[in-house]
Amino acid sequence: MKARVTVMLKNGVLDVQGEAVRHALGTLGFAGVNGVRQGKVIELDLAETDTAAAEATVKAMCEKLLANTVIESYRIELL
Amino acid sequence: MKARVTVMLKNGVLDVQGEAVRHALGTLGFAGVNGVRQGKVIELDLAETDTAAAEATVKAMCEKLLANTVIESYRIELL
Repeated sequence: MKARVTVMLKNGVLDVQGEAVRHALGTLGFAGVNGVRQGKVIELDLAETDTAAAEATVKAMCEKLLANTVIESYRIELL
Repeated sequence: MKARVTVMLKNGVLDVQGEAVRHALGTLGFAGVNGVRQGKVIELDLAETDTAAAEATVKAMCEKLLANTVIESYRIELL
């Protein structure tokens, strides 16, 4: 079973990468970009086949390693 | 209009970040992880309201800045 975890900085946390991308897009001539947020996506290939068990495992992975829950939020999708 | 761009390393390109995550998950006791790929996600808040025009603009952004198309593939979602 495959899972996709998307980790983004929480709203209110300064996203310097996103700001850098926004600035670079402006420099390249792309107008009308009101905001950019950059995060990371982690695709996991799991041996687990049960959806509920896989979701619980991935949630534990997020809490322990994949996301810094003080400043980041995460979203889990099972594919 | 909002757009989400997901940039992943192409298959066959060594993903050192993904390998590091896989190793760390193993160290933390998570078994049954067959593979991990890590990429980036960029959420854009665009002034453009026309879907086709927005998609064309975001595609140009990807080709010019957001992805290194030699080693990375990208996927665009309009939200």
